[in-house]
Amino acid sequence: MSTPHRTDVAIIGAGPVGLFAVFECGMLKMRCHVIDALGEPGGQCAALYPEKPIYDIPGHPRIEAAQLIDRLVEQAEPFAPTYHLGQQVETLARQPDGRWLVGTGAGTTIDAAAVIVAAGVGAFGPNRPPLAGIEDFENRSVFYMVTRKEALRGKRVVVAGGGDSALDWSILLADVAAQVLVVHRRDKFRGAPDSVARLHALAEAGKVELVTPYQLHGLEGAGGQLSAVTVATLEGEVRRLEADVLLPFFGLSMNLGPIANWGLALDKHHIAIDQATAATSAPGIFAVGDIATYPHKLKLILTGFAEAASAAHAIYPLVHPGEVLHFEYSTTAGVPGV
Amino acid sequence: MSTPHRTDVAIIGAGPVGLFAVFECGMLKMRCHVIDALGEPGGQCAALYPEKPIYDIPGHPRIEAAQLIDRLVEQAEPFAPTYHLGQQVETLARQPDGRWLVGTGAGTTIDAAAVIVAAGVGAFGPNRPPLAGIEDFENRSVFYMVTRKEALRGKRVVVAGGGDSALDWSILLADVAAQVLVVHRRDKFRGAPDSVARLHALAEAGKVELVTPYQLHGLEGAGGQLSAVTVATLEGEVRRLEADVLLPFFGLSMNLGPIANWGLALDKHHIAIDQATAATSAPGIFAVGDIATYPHKLKLILTGFAEAASAAHAIYPLVHPGEVLHFEYSTTAGVPGV
Repeated sequence: MSTPHRTDVAIIGAGPVGLFAVFECGMLKMRCHVIDALGEPGGQCAALYPEKPIYDIPGHPRIEAAQLIDRLVEQAEPFAPTYHLGQQVETLARQPDGRWLVGTGAGTTIDAAAVIVAAGVGAFGPNRPPLAGIEDFENRSVFYMVTRKEALRGKRVVVAGGGDSALDWSILLADVAAQVLVVHRRDKFRGAPDSVARLHALAEAGKVELVTPYQLHGLEGAGGQLSAVTVATLEGEVRRLEADVLLPFFGLSMNLGPIANWGLALDKHHIAIDQATAATSAPGIFAVGDIATYPHKLKLILTGFAEAASAAHAIYPLVHPGEVLHFEYSTTAGVPGV
Repeated sequence: MSTPHRTDVAIIGAGPVGLFAVFECGMLKMRCHVIDALGEPGGQCAALYPEKPIYDIPGHPRIEAAQLIDRLVEQAEPFAPTYHLGQQVETLARQPDGRWLVGTGAGTTIDAAAVIVAAGVGAFGPNRPPLAGIEDFENRSVFYMVTRKEALRGKRVVVAGGGDSALDWSILLADVAAQVLVVHRRDKFRGAPDSVARLHALAEAGKVELVTPYQLHGLEGAGGQLSAVTVATLEGEVRRLEADVLLPFFGLSMNLGPIANWGLALDKHHIAIDQATAATSAPGIFAVGDIATYPHKLKLILTGFAEAASAAHAIYPLVHPGEVLHFEYSTTAGVPGV
């Protein structure tokens, strides 16, 4: 174990709410370390739907998820947070002096007066199709998410799945890819009616080809590069589809991961908090955003932002014991370093 | 009394939080009428400090108050709210069918299933200095707020007061006005230390003149146009300051106005609500933003935004009885009309 980093607040999760927690803590003169399992800040916004527009952030009639993350990173920047990315928090232990020790799978340890858990839906990952050897192709020619559709320009793409992600990406890639084949085990798709209609229109126009009712059956290729995808009917009829890229969209599986082992009071796979302060059942541990719950909780990014403010104010006396918080509106206080 | 407008939700107050309540109600298919005593949307943001930067709106590292209002008006626009501006709500009465009747001083009446009180600090106004005949000069050459500093370019300005507003405007006007005289009854100013230091530096550089310890004593001029301000020491020594404009900054007085008479449970001049739903003590009446209070309440614009979302969700079953709310993230639902 390396020497622990000592800080005021350890924030677990660098999604939008975790990032805004850095700002709220900073406004109250508290320094933060932020840990995230993903390799860059942004959580689901950056990893799952960077180009998707969001309409319900106050003061942003429309903003793409990745833009929102950029603005939140910029807003946190004056308070110089330390990021520990690409590593998952595994252990959370109370020390004799009441401070907390946060440990990651990469061996990083952080000694903090308080912890804010802003871990979204917890650990999440794509459901993998059960194809022999698929791990050799993953992130090289098999992708479970598309963060930049331009990377697929001119490629022969196979999309697998029958839900909204499969539909949305088939439609978006029709103009970009050299070929879009949509493999689904039924003839009927189960996404938004408007998307289903658009997909069928593209199929009639020859811009996509529907390969139904077929299931994924096998992968061909070498050195991580796919050359073909084989598909089969329930009756065992096999077809070979030449392809450069496979995009399987079979949903996400989510689980709390190590968080479930930290002894915090839970409520249906969420962390139970006091809405007024974002406090969990453990002293000094707070939870905010989608992972936190209480009566009438709304799972909105906005709600998480407000919870981050509540948590920062509740943490202040732990970091600055005995000091009275001279609370000012940011319009009068300004921001150090801006 | 005119025929009442019939709507889902009446929102009292068109400040940032009232405007965002229109959006949140709209996302849940509820139509709104919005009433405000001021002549334009924006509340304090528009009326008191339109050019002041705000740093703590999530996703906006820095935004001027008037810009924030513009974005919120734009965000509410797809839901076509009806605004009733320049009129104050005076009466709020429950009808036999459980709906509410909102009446304004201008004779407008609104029949709504629910009411959201987003009235900020209530009615607010500047503290007037007790100078004979001052009302003749008000809004012509005596101003209690500056909404556009360019209007003072080349003018001989007297600023009166010793707090942050007096300091901020003296500093901001030093480069714009032909003359800035700062009248304060003590030698010591009581604003932010950094501002006090900057004012003294400007005084040493001859860019402003400190007239202390003096109090305002009288006004000279005709037809609403000031020609001089007289000031006096406690010992009765009088000085005459030639001036085109007087800016008295002696703070704001605030009061709940008619809201205090509506029978809602109050807590130290604020409306007491349930944080989870923003419900007041009266069924169908909700309160959000600075006027609403509960344990650990933070007076942040952000907090008001989140309360507006809670209120909209709590109102939904009143407007659509028996319908189950199919709640979607805005990223999947989109916004009608956008």
